[in-house]
Parts: sequence; structure tokens; C-alpha cells
Amino acid sequence: MKEHTTISLGHGSGGLMTRELLDDIIFKAFSNPYLDKKHDGSVVQFDGPIAISTDSFVISPIFFKGGNIGELAIHGTVNDVAMCGAMPKYLSLAFVVEEGLDIQEFKTIINSIKTTAEVCGVQIITGDTKVVERGKGDKIFINTTGFGAVHPKAKISADRIMTGDKIIVNGNIAQHGMAIMSQREGLEFESTIESDSTNLNFITQKLLDQFGDQIHLYRDATRGGIASVLTEIALDINKGVAIHEKHLPLDRQVAAACEILGLDPLYVANEGVFVAIVDEPIADDVLEMLRNDEKGTNACCIGEFTEEYPTKVVMHSGIGGKRIVSPLIGEQLPRIC
Amino acid sequence: MKEHTTISLGHGSGGLMTRELLDDIIFKAFSNPYLDKKHDGSVVQFDGPIAISTDSFVISPIFFKGGNIGELAIHGTVNDVAMCGAMPKYLSLAFVVEEGLDIQEFKTIINSIKTTAEVCGVQIITGDTKVVERGKGDKIFINTTGFGAVHPKAKISADRIMTGDKIIVNGNIAQHGMAIMSQREGLEFESTIESDSTNLNFITQKLLDQFGDQIHLYRDATRGGIASVLTEIALDINKGVAIHEKHLPLDRQVAAACEILGLDPLYVANEGVFVAIVDEPIADDVLEMLRNDEKGTNACCIGEFTEEYPTKVVMHSGIGGKRIVSPLIGEQLPRIC
Repeated sequence: MKEHTTISLGHGSGGLMTRELLDDIIFKAFSNPYLDKKHDGSVVQFDGPIAISTDSFVISPIFFKGGNIGELAIHGTVNDVAMCGAMPKYLSLAFVVEEGLDIQEFKTIINSIKTTAEVCGVQIITGDTKVVERGKGDKIFINTTGFGAVHPKAKISADRIMTGDKIIVNGNIAQHGMAIMSQREGLEFESTIESDSTNLNFITQKLLDQFGDQIHLYRDATRGGIASVLTEIALDINKGVAIHEKHLPLDRQVAAACEILGLDPLYVANEGVFVAIVDEPIADDVLEMLRNDEKGTNACCIGEFTEEYPTKVVMHSGIGGKRIVSPLIGEQLPRIC
Repeated sequence: MKEHTTISLGHGSGGLMTRELLDDIIFKAFSNPYLDKKHDGSVVQFDGPIAISTDSFVISPIFFKGGNIGELAIHGTVNDVAMCGAMPKYLSLAFVVEEGLDIQEFKTIINSIKTTAEVCGVQIITGDTKVVERGKGDKIFINTTGFGAVHPKAKISADRIMTGDKIIVNGNIAQHGMAIMSQREGLEFESTIESDSTNLNFITQKLLDQFGDQIHLYRDATRGGIASVLTEIALDINKGVAIHEKHLPLDRQVAAACEILGLDPLYVANEGVFVAIVDEPIADDVLEMLRNDEKGTNACCIGEFTEEYPTKVVMHSGIGGKRIVSPLIGEQLPRIC
């Protein structure tokens, strides 16, 4: 690989250059008994139900405050599996690289993936690398698909939500979207706004250990933010949602950035925020457990499910007003994940 | 969706337009109990070992003689799972769409995916749709990840290959690559060269039913063709491979197209050709079973593993000559799959 400083079409040929790229960078980074077989796929075994989730990551820029596309591709899919009440164990990893990508940047991304996968406790067991001509992609797109064993106590399903159920978020919202937007717009704040990209698999399993089927639903609030998650659920289960503005956990600088750019933080993407919808009687205990965990220090109960306004999300403002939170129409922040 | 004739960034927002696209086109086409839950992932159950494989498809043009990118994305991953000795059962499906893609084209691709998945006997259980700005992608890229139960008699592993093992291919080589190349170059032949894109899951399972662990390895000869599969295996297991030119199944017109374009059919991509490496004593019976199946009518035994020339593939020509088949260096046909 010494002679190459950028990715070329030959790296996607399936021939010697592909093999060198795999051997020198990818297999070396992720070596494990599954990948080392270098077959078209890998064979794994699970006892019991398996949660599966897939996501493609097309974020721009690929390096941003608080992370990069590689880290995000692991967190994103690990979290989607976790939202099914499962502990992610294996991931597939597929790249679509634009000709001309700097090989050092590619290596940095691979190293991030390696480190992040280790922290999350997942193994990369199979993969794919394609290269497209300059101008037919944008540096790098990554797909990850994750597999995990469902927690034995988990009964995660929107149809288990009852009137009175509490809506808890684990931390400050709108960080990820505003980190990307600030960077794109060249905005400077007292301190840098960083993406909240992180893994939620351990905390979500811990809650299931303790509270089992009293946790009715997990959803991570990525593209479209908290508003999109809640408006979708309200519509799907034909119940109303009341949320309380004063309980929304929101960093002061993120709030300021949203003001400047005219964005509503409810719609801004997160990468480390999830919504837990839980039986009303356990809400305080869930909050306490979250606040004692590093992934939930700013956890808040932001609202509840109601019989009023079925299919609608209603925001109660600090001064006693009410407004309907509409579903996001069109695009707010393209390529945020 | 009536008002939209092309895909716009809003379709990737995670908001209402994404939801409409999913509801009107994707969920409608693939409706099943897994997808209908509309969660971040799906939960499935397997008894015993599971084969997993992932592939991203970036082929250009997206519609070609004998198929389209949607059909290919199903066949490709179904076949990779089949090559692990498994019967594919579930697929994830993730799109990266370029802004401006014609919605009718998108629907045609979705319908192809639906039909192909039905023929292959697989269900789409989870997915993702991202949209990138015009000029940052190329119409549509598709990732599929497949899961299947490993055949109880399968013991597919390169380290089980022995000297004397026979190398069998199921049909005419180089069809897919030459179909794409002819189309790109505007070449016309007496009859059109069509891609061989097809599913190999039923035939590979049928062989395992009959011959069990006497089948040592399956590999599909996609990017880089037969040459890349064999040179990789020879290197990995430190054995020699002898192949016989006169036994290579090759359509006359495909051979002519290769001549015209100066391409060696051994390196040209296939999408319906696999290599089975089998115990010498069963080779004739494997051939017979293949030739009696629609996926193997042109099956041939093209060579064997030898102690001579370890790590090398040696081609024996019709007139008694020999040449080393080198690994493919660089790129032959970009974006062939």
C-alpha cells in the first residue's frame, strides 16, 4: 500500500488492490476468527431471539466536532439494536468510497471504528468495499447492520404503551445536529458544541435488568429529533402525547445556536439521546438510575401519553400556552447522519 | 406522494416525507409482520448457526440487459449467504439515493426487489433510506445484508480443500460483466448479451442435501471473476490450481465481446456463477446434478487442486501450453456490481 496515498478505482476491483487494502488496513484492524476466514460471509450462533437493524451513514462533513462518520456508523447501529431491547454483538460493515479519498483519512476512520466497536463490545464479522468514480459519491458512505440477543425480560413494542405512560429522555437534546450545523455555517460559540454521538447499549440493558417489561418502548431520537419520534408514535398508536417545554433538557449554547439558525431543537438530530416510554409508577426510579449513569446525567421526564388529542403531540409552554408539534415536513438538516 | 416525481432531500429527512415514501412505496411493497412494526429494527429467531453476509451495490447503469440494481442487490447477498452453505431467509435493505432520482425508476427498482425476494424465498425485515444532494451520489446505491440458517450437513471452509479436489462451475462465465460492458460501449451483437444475475440458494442447498461435507467450498465468482476466486484460494491455502481452457464454459458471443474489448473472460464478473470445490470421487455426480438443474445446465469441471505450483493458478491451454493466471491488479470494469 506504500505507493498509494488515495483510494483509486482499483481498490474496488475485487482483485489484488482490493485484497491489499483489506489485508493492510481492514483485516488488520478488525482481526477476529470470523473475519480471518475471509469468506463471503460469517457464521455465528445465537440462543433465542435476535434483533437486527441496518443503517447507512452519509454524514457531511465526515469529520466533525465530537466524532467522525466511522464512530457514528458504529454508535448508530449499536443504538438501533439496543432500541429493540437487545445487546448488540456483531456488525457487518460496508463502504462505498469515492475515488480520491485520502488513505490516511480512511485509516483514521477505520481506527475510530475499531476503538468504538471495542467500547461497544461488538465484533465486525463481515464486510464489503466498493469504490465509485470521483464525483459519483462523497468521500465515504458506510453501512452497518447489527445483530444482538434480545434481553430475556424485554417486551419492547409500541402497542404496549398505555395512557399515563411517562416519556423519559436520557440527556440534552439537539447536540449532534447543532454541532454539524455550527460547523457547516462556521459559527463560533464560547465553547465548541460537540456531537453527542455515543453508545446506549449498556444503559438500555441495565434499565431492562431492573425494570423488565415495565419499559414499553425505546426509540433513539436521531434524524428528525424528538419531535419525529413522538409524532410517529402518537400516530401509530392513536394516543395523544403531552410534553412540557420546561422539562426539555437543553444546553444553553445549543439553545442559542438553534435561535440564531432559526431551528426548533425538538426537530434537531441526536446521536446519543433515546426516549424511554415507561409505566408511570417506575418513572422516578428510571430517572434515578439514568441520572446515576454517565449516559443519563441530564435525564428528564418530558411528558406523558394522554387520551386527549389522539395522534397529536402537544407542547405545554413554560407560561401555560399549548401548541401542536407537527411532524417534520421536508428537510431540516440534510446529511446529518 | 402524488406531487413528487423525483426524490428530494426531504425524503431523507426522517420526517413526514420520509414516512410518506416508506408508507406509499416501501412498506406497501414489502409488508410483513417484521416491517409492519416500523421499529428501528426487527426481531427474528434461528435455531442453530446463522450465516451473515453484506454487500453494497453501486452498479452503473442501474438498469441493464438482464436485470437492474434492485434485482442484483437481492441476488448478490442471497448468493453470498448461500456460499456459506446456508439458506438465506431474511435481508436488510438500505438505500443511498441521489436527489433527483425519478420516483418511477425507484418504484421499478422496489418492485424488482419485491419479486426477486419472493423468488429467492427471503423477507425484507428492516431497512434505511438516505438521500444525498445532486452530484454527491449516482442515482442509487443499495446495501443488503442477509441471514440464513446453515445447512446441517454443511462444512464449508477453505481449509478443508485437499489436493485432488475438483473445481466445478455451474455455467457460462463472463456474462454479467460483458453485458454491462457491451451496454456501456454501445456494442451490438447478433443477440443481446444478458447478465446472468440469478439466485443460487436452492441449487447450492440441493447439492448439500446430497453430498454434505464432501463439498469443501462454495464461492461465487462476482467482481474479479473466476481468476480472482481461484488465485485468492490458492494463496490462502498454499496449494496449486490447474485449470483447463477447453473446459471453461463460455458463450460464443461473450467470447467475441471479450476479444473485441481485449478482456480475459477469466477476470470478468459473474452474478450467477459459483465455484464448487468438491471431493474428487463425487465430481461426476455433482456435475450430473447441476446439469439437470436450470441453474447448472452448462456446468463443467474446469480443474483441480494440485501439489505443483503452490499458491499459483496455472491455465493449461487447448494446444498443450501453460500460463500462470495472475491475480487481477488494478481495475478492469469499475462499478460492475
